[in-house]
Parts: sequence; structure tokens; C-alpha cells
Amino acid sequence: MDLDFDKTGGLIPAVIQDSQSQRVLMVGFMNEEAFRATVASGRVTFFSRSRNKLWTKGESSGHTLVVKRIQTDCDKDCVLVQVEALGPGVCHEGYESCFFRSLDGASWKVSEEKTYDPAKVY
Amino acid sequence: MDLDFDKTGGLIPAVIQDSQSQRVLMVGFMNEEAFRATVASGRVTFFSRSRNKLWTKGESSGHTLVVKRIQTDCDKDCVLVQVEALGPGVCHEGYESCFFRSLDGASWKVSEEKTYDPAKVY
Repeated sequence: MDLDFDKTGGLIPAVIQDSQSQRVLMVGFMNEEAFRATVASGRVTFFSRSRNKLWTKGESSGHTLVVKRIQTDCDKDCVLVQVEALGPGVCHEGYESCFFRSLDGASWKVSEEKTYDPAKVY
Repeated sequence: MDLDFDKTGGLIPAVIQDSQSQRVLMVGFMNEEAFRATVASGRVTFFSRSRNKLWTKGESSGHTLVVKRIQTDCDKDCVLVQVEALGPGVCHEGYESCFFRSLDGASWKVSEEKTYDPAKVY
């Protein structure tokens, strides 16, 4: 599992994609420990840059990401994780996907409805 | 178009997804100049960390990525670009997607066939 963690200071982007709908749900970062924890547990685990520690997605919300398949790219400096997303949405702002804004002209517009009330979860 | 380029030293991950098949084709990085060039030209432009300059995908191969939609995430520190990919594949190793390896047990296995001969293109 020889990934190239050195290129970006120990962290590689991890793209999380719904294995059924193929929607991209979120992008986080993993260090080698987070990647190994993801593989070992079958639950997506990131390295939180703001909290400076490992973070298993769903540990507070219950919105866990169950690993279905892991792929890497030609340079082995990024991973694509196909998941089953438990719960109504992965985004802490209440949306199915963190990518809920689309570029419209020169500004970002919210392009979908919330799927849950984050105040009741976080 | 107020993206947060500061969190990762001026560069944000740009996930490239086929707008039709929804396959994730590659992940690159953009600085603000690359992002603006992508929006202005309608062709995906990255910042190459190895060459330290802007790089419009396809400028040597012809395998251009035509922008269909651009989304950003809750933190505005990542973009998801839906594209029409011109040519037989985006990966310089001859595959449709750079994510041609899957984790199989503890090792990466090539999980698909090449779609073109890179020696004839690069």
C-alpha cells in the first residue's frame, strides 16, 4: 500500500464517492495512519487539519462512511474511496454532499435542498 | 468566487468527474490563477507542482477537459469540476481514468484495460 504521502507534506486528498449514485460526497485528507485506519476498520478516517488528529467520519453524527472500494491514481498521491454513506447526508451543513454550491456566473449559488437539520445532529 | 486557497498553501484539490458517466477521472491542484483560467477558458487548467506553472490539461496530448459545471464544498477549499473529456483517456499512462488501480487485500492491482497507447500521444 505504498502511497506517496511526501508530495503534500504527509497528507493526500481522499475523494469520497457514493458507490451507488456515483455522487462525489466530500473530499478530505489522509495521512498514512488515517489511510491504514480506513483500510483496517472499513470506515473512512481522515486526518483533520484543523484539529490535528485522526477523525473517523460519523464519530459524532453517526453519518459513517462504509468503505466499498478503494482506488488510487497513477502517481499514488490521491485515493478515491467508494462508500455507502449512512444517514441523510455527509455535510455538517445539512446537505447530502458537501458540494452543494455551483458556480453561476461569477458567484456560488446553493444548488440543492438540505436533507436534514444539522442543529439536531451536531 | 471566494475560494479558500490559504489552507493548503495556495493550492486546492480539483476533482475532475465525467459529466455523463460520473466517473472520477483525475485529481489535480489549482491555485487561484489556474481556477480563474479554468473558468475563463472553459478548459480545465491546473497548477503543476512538479513544473511549478499553470498547465492546461490536453495542451500536449489533445485530451482536453471541457468544463460543464463547477461546484465547491462547504469550506470552499476544494472544487468538483464536471467535464466532457475529449480523447480516449485522461491518464498519461493510457487509461480512461487515473484511478485505474484498486486495493486488493494489501496491494494495488490494475483493475482495467488501457484505452490508448500513451507512446503514440506523449
